[in-house]
Amino acid sequence: MTTTTMGGRAPRNLSGITKARLEAFSDGVLAIVITLLAIELRPPEVDEGQSLAGALWEQWPSYLAYLLAFTQIGVIWLNHHRLFDQVRVVDGKLLLLNLNLLMWITLIPFPTALVAEHLRDGGEATRTAVAVFSGTLFVTSIGFTALYAWITHDDRLVEALPPRHAVVAARIRFGVGLAAYGVAVGLAFLWPYAALAIHAMSAAYYAFDQATFDVSEPAETQAVPWR
Amino acid sequence: MTTTTMGGRAPRNLSGITKARLEAFSDGVLAIVITLLAIELRPPEVDEGQSLAGALWEQWPSYLAYLLAFTQIGVIWLNHHRLFDQVRVVDGKLLLLNLNLLMWITLIPFPTALVAEHLRDGGEATRTAVAVFSGTLFVTSIGFTALYAWITHDDRLVEALPPRHAVVAARIRFGVGLAAYGVAVGLAFLWPYAALAIHAMSAAYYAFDQATFDVSEPAETQAVPWR
Amino acid sequence: MTTTTMGGRAPRNLSGITKARLEAFSDGVLAIVITLLAIELRPPEVDEGQSLAGALWEQWPSYLAYLLAFTQIGVIWLNHHRLFDQVRVVDGKLLLLNLNLLMWITLIPFPTALVAEHLRDGGEATRTAVAVFSGTLFVTSIGFTALYAWITHDDRLVEALPPRHAVVAARIRFGVGLAAYGVAVGLAFLWPYAALAIHAMSAAYYAFDQATFDVSEPAETQAVPWR
Amino acid sequence: MTTTTMGGRAPRNLSGITKARLEAFSDGVLAIVITLLAIELRPPEVDEGQSLAGALWEQWPSYLAYLLAFTQIGVIWLNHHRLFDQVRVVDGKLLLLNLNLLMWITLIPFPTALVAEHLRDGGEATRTAVAVFSGTLFVTSIGFTALYAWITHDDRLVEALPPRHAVVAARIRFGVGLAAYGVAVGLAFLWPYAALAIHAMSAAYYAFDQATFDVSEPAETQAVPWR
Repeated sequence: MTTTTMGGRAPRNLSGITKARLEAFSDGVLAIVITLLAIELRPPEVDEGQSLAGALWEQWPSYLAYLLAFTQIGVIWLNHHRLFDQVRVVDGKLLLLNLNLLMWITLIPFPTALVAEHLRDGGEATRTAVAVFSGTLFVTSIGFTALYAWITHDDRLVEALPPRHAVVAARIRFGVGLAAYGVAVGLAFLWPYAALAIHAMSAAYYAFDQATFDVSEPAETQAVPWR
Repeated sequence: MTTTTMGGRAPRNLSGITKARLEAFSDGVLAIVITLLAIELRPPEVDEGQSLAGALWEQWPSYLAYLLAFTQIGVIWLNHHRLFDQVRVVDGKLLLLNLNLLMWITLIPFPTALVAEHLRDGGEATRTAVAVFSGTLFVTSIGFTALYAWITHDDRLVEALPPRHAVVAARIRFGVGLAAYGVAVGLAFLWPYAALAIHAMSAAYYAFDQATFDVSEPAETQAVPWR
Repeated sequence: MTTTTMGGRAPRNLSGITKARLEAFSDGVLAIVITLLAIELRPPEVDEGQSLAGALWEQWPSYLAYLLAFTQIGVIWLNHHRLFDQVRVVDGKLLLLNLNLLMWITLIPFPTALVAEHLRDGGEATRTAVAVFSGTLFVTSIGFTALYAWITHDDRLVEALPPRHAVVAARIRFGVGLAAYGVAVGLAFLWPYAALAIHAMSAAYYAFDQATFDVSEPAETQAVPWR
Repeated sequence: MTTTTMGGRAPRNLSGITKARLEAFSDGVLAIVITLLAIELRPPEVDEGQSLAGALWEQWPSYLAYLLAFTQIGVIWLNHHRLFDQVRVVDGKLLLLNLNLLMWITLIPFPTALVAEHLRDGGEATRTAVAVFSGTLFVTSIGFTALYAWITHDDRLVEALPPRHAVVAARIRFGVGLAAYGVAVGLAFLWPYAALAIHAMSAAYYAFDQATFDVSEPAETQAVPWR
């Protein structure tokens, strides 16, 4: 009776591309980026008279960078899906904003490798590496905020525009993230480790936020984060 | 009552492979190619007495090449989906033409790395690198046009053949792209940077074209780009 | 009548992310990890006066490591899907536990490369490489067990909680795996090859377990492994 | 009324894993493998006094190897889907046979790199490289045949077992492929280029076979290759 496409139940998309396809492509990119992070982890050069265990241990900045970047991308995936769960149709601007976001996300392994390589150098190299890492995440979060702002700017794209206070609340939540990443960029030039700690806390913040969609609240409320 | 498969609502495919699967495979390849572009971005060698920031800055051709290639593949993804949105069934020739297109697309990271490495060399190396980059995109766009021509050559594959003038309009649009890439190949031997500028404009051309599927036109028109 | 989304027939998810999406993302990561394993296999350096065949043969630890890691990840994929086949809705904790599992899985190519490179070194290097490999699989299986425990801890997430004895049986099965990986970590320090043999047997154990979902038992029983 | 899962319309799977998921995972692996092939294409070392164009030209074995491997994997993808289009349910053996097939497919970039690196060496190195390439494809085609044999051995897995003569015809078709790859292994030791020619012809054979599912025959016949 009705023609149902994948991701269906929605009116015909404004862009000729369905939401399901947009999500599948974004998922593919995110899955690849998150997996490529581990490609930076290489068997270490073992110096004369050094144990492999010792050489592995000396690579700790690589493990730390991997952990930081993995949690960031994990959190991006979670929020990307939560955001798109509300979307009904896709228009051209949304496609471009999403591609813009993906472009910054696929960059993340690069500054991650910078941090892994230069964290122990100290001085300018460490500060620059952490600043580039923080800056990439900062720009990524700007891209994310732009996507969110476009999606919620009127009710053409979503099933129902969230009530005003919910949009405000979500924007504050986003704003905290933006601010944190911005602060991290600045801190990178003073105390690089403090900047990395902010990234860890930022990921944990979103992770615990995740945990609230859990047993303690009524299911209805939990299911509709943006409203 | 009716058996609906994924990508469904269509008559049984002529090739034993559904459109949904063709799209999923193509999406996978595109997602990987677009992500692999960033793999070329490596922490730079830092020379004695050089700052990391300076070394990073010197890598600007890599960033430019990344940006150019990302936008090209992003645009390919957009148009691939817009094209297939009209397709109902898949036949054997379509499969082969699509594989041919993917074969050229997966090549793109290679000339991108060439441009990144040789853009500042000047002389023959720069011209060759940009020419190979342009040539790969040129052949890719020929592959794309062949796919479009096959899909629209009769109404077996699409829901309804677009009206004559729409096919002509779309062919002109494709033709502009083809011509632009062809001109870029030639320009590469004279002014390599001009060739790269054409690629940037070409991506922007398709990006702005995207933007037209937006608020200002009636939704019906927007949804059916090829007609 | 009912709105069916992909992965549908379930009540609205508690986390704003559908099961289908969680599975697709996990599948993507697993497919990439399993494919990246082979990237470690590189054309060998051929020494003066050595045949290519000889040089290839000398790389046997790489082939062994590839085989061991491929079967482990294959088995993880099988069990991940079997587990999620029972899941109806996804909550926030499940998402985090799944991301945690994926984080360890994406690490696997790293210790695999360690084993490939150091298996023939003998002494500390071999023991450390195998211990890191075993340890990564051990932690991965802990992550898997945590996921299973959360999914079966009450009937909110699954269609119907398996009967008590089935949960116990499944936990024993998981426990055997955990114990095997734990033993392998210890053995790595004594007889590294014995540790690798345990990994091979562990994969075979799950593979043969697979084979029981076959012709000899009634289909109903076969379809519901956890009950 | 009926519960429809993705890839649905089938009875509950014997293995707890749906066909759609098996296909999605296989597609993911194939998409990654086919894309990784191009990773071998690297900017060449440019010798003193050599042009970039000359250095690029000298890499022709890499382009040839890429082309040969891409077409092989493209053909594998086509036939994998055509095969699974007939499958209704998935059992444990099918899962294992499919994983076995994927294990050999993910190896393909390795012998491809061998051919790219050693094709011009002449003598033992060339013969070994081509033999390993041919051998990998030979084992892959054995894995494919085993999968086909299991799927068609009784009608539990397929919608309806193809008539006897169609199974025989399909087995002959598979047999030709097997024989061709086997012959290529042998030829590699005598005339390596002849072995590569056989691979090219083998891919073309399947490609033209593809082309027969086209306009000239009645659609019904075209849609059911195995019957």
